[in-house]
Amino acid sequence: MELIHIAVIGAKPLLEGIRARIEKSISDQRDKGKSPAMAIMRIGKDPASEFYFRAKLKKGSELGVETRAITMEEDATPQEVQERLDQVVKDPMIHGIIIESPVPHHLDYKKIVNTIPWHKDIDGASYENLGRLMSGMPSLVAATPLAVMEYVSSLEIPQGSTVAVINRTITVGRPLTQLLLNNNYTPIVCHSRTRNIRELCKASDVIVVAAGKPGFLGQEMVSRDSIVIDVGINSVNGKIVGDARIDEIKDLVKAVTPVPGGVGSLTSTLIFSNLIQAMDYQEELK
Amino acid sequence: MELIHIAVIGAKPLLEGIRARIEKSISDQRDKGKSPAMAIMRIGKDPASEFYFRAKLKKGSELGVETRAITMEEDATPQEVQERLDQVVKDPMIHGIIIESPVPHHLDYKKIVNTIPWHKDIDGASYENLGRLMSGMPSLVAATPLAVMEYVSSLEIPQGSTVAVINRTITVGRPLTQLLLNNNYTPIVCHSRTRNIRELCKASDVIVVAAGKPGFLGQEMVSRDSIVIDVGINSVNGKIVGDARIDEIKDLVKAVTPVPGGVGSLTSTLIFSNLIQAMDYQEELK
Repeated sequence: MELIHIAVIGAKPLLEGIRARIEKSISDQRDKGKSPAMAIMRIGKDPASEFYFRAKLKKGSELGVETRAITMEEDATPQEVQERLDQVVKDPMIHGIIIESPVPHHLDYKKIVNTIPWHKDIDGASYENLGRLMSGMPSLVAATPLAVMEYVSSLEIPQGSTVAVINRTITVGRPLTQLLLNNNYTPIVCHSRTRNIRELCKASDVIVVAAGKPGFLGQEMVSRDSIVIDVGINSVNGKIVGDARIDEIKDLVKAVTPVPGGVGSLTSTLIFSNLIQAMDYQEELK
Repeated sequence: MELIHIAVIGAKPLLEGIRARIEKSISDQRDKGKSPAMAIMRIGKDPASEFYFRAKLKKGSELGVETRAITMEEDATPQEVQERLDQVVKDPMIHGIIIESPVPHHLDYKKIVNTIPWHKDIDGASYENLGRLMSGMPSLVAATPLAVMEYVSSLEIPQGSTVAVINRTITVGRPLTQLLLNNNYTPIVCHSRTRNIRELCKASDVIVVAAGKPGFLGQEMVSRDSIVIDVGINSVNGKIVGDARIDEIKDLVKAVTPVPGGVGSLTSTLIFSNLIQAMDYQEELK
């Protein structure tokens, strides 16, 4: 890898490419007489869930894709939720389903999401999708790890490179590890218990930081060759910031992605990429 | 970690502990009026499959556990296999099912194994078990990664330690990575495309080698602090050898597991540990 300083790499050019790709796919589907549509189920009034819910509806209307909002009351019973979901699952006009999380405490998100067939689970949250991803089989994958891979691919990071992933959750670190392996990278999965995280990060070609702690990653964890992909989204004094101290490291590393305007700005669009992928899988399964 | 040279650590004491644990569990199940039983389905005449098939039958008879052999002809159709399997799945007296792999070319192992309910899939091969493992939920896990974890646990390797895993298959490296994360270790998943595998191994606290290449790991990849867990099983001139050049490294590292008499000697027993685990899951699901 050459030692060129790329500095801060915003998502805008990437986003334009992804959007063009999706628009082309939507148009191809329409040529086949199919109209992509997703259902977004929202139960109760969690404010974070509200934010992402609205972002998806907005993105859908921009792309001309039907996003059917299914809202249920905070006190909906498990049976009521399941009956409603079963109707949606059976609807042949709906190609992808999202359950906004978190759901109210008396409901079991995992249980609900695992009743969606894998090829309609566009959040990639079901056990079957996770197992398929792990097996390198056709699957749907959560949008955040996909967004990281869009960066990895656009930066032309050589196969075999080491990628320190600071996150071991089921929505980010674990599926990302599988995508990295499926694409011939060498993941190092770090977390709060990792003993020598500074050295591991410093020696890695890429650092994906999703510690959920503002200011977590600074100069002590990077080298001149580091590419830092910041997945953190933290609210500090009413401002959204990432996990990296970007002002401190931006001139010390090869490249760093900004927050906002980096990984997070790709995810709501990539959900629609998953929707098109889901339509293709459903066609193949016929 | 102290710098004590432990040298070659055979599986015998470990195996005795595991066996005692299983015998106790079997006896507990019998006290509840239950008699553990597994079905092992073997289709066709693959010689490797024959070897493992017989090893499990033998181990079952030693432990006093019923192992029902279900053999089908090489030319069995997918429908015939599925019908036979469906009967076994429905049998309430059978608590665990294994499909010996490889199956004949005209059959799809993944498809067959994914029709077994997760709580009877004691090889941990179904998507649901893999997804559950990844999610840190109750699951059944393949015997080889479990055997590695038995070593990790018996050697009291501190949490947070780095573990270089040289394998990214769905039966060894990938589930092992999940077990390591679930137990607070830091996995570094290496494979044929990894660029700096020597340095990564040398700097890791533990090296799990499953490259499937005799003599793959030697002095250039280890340090005085290394603990080497050799998962390789290779036949060289009629002799079974591991992936590590054990004579070369045994006095240079902290510890190394032998082949034969190491990881591989635990697996056929751990299948029975999974069988007991499966019975407990089935009880909870009632």
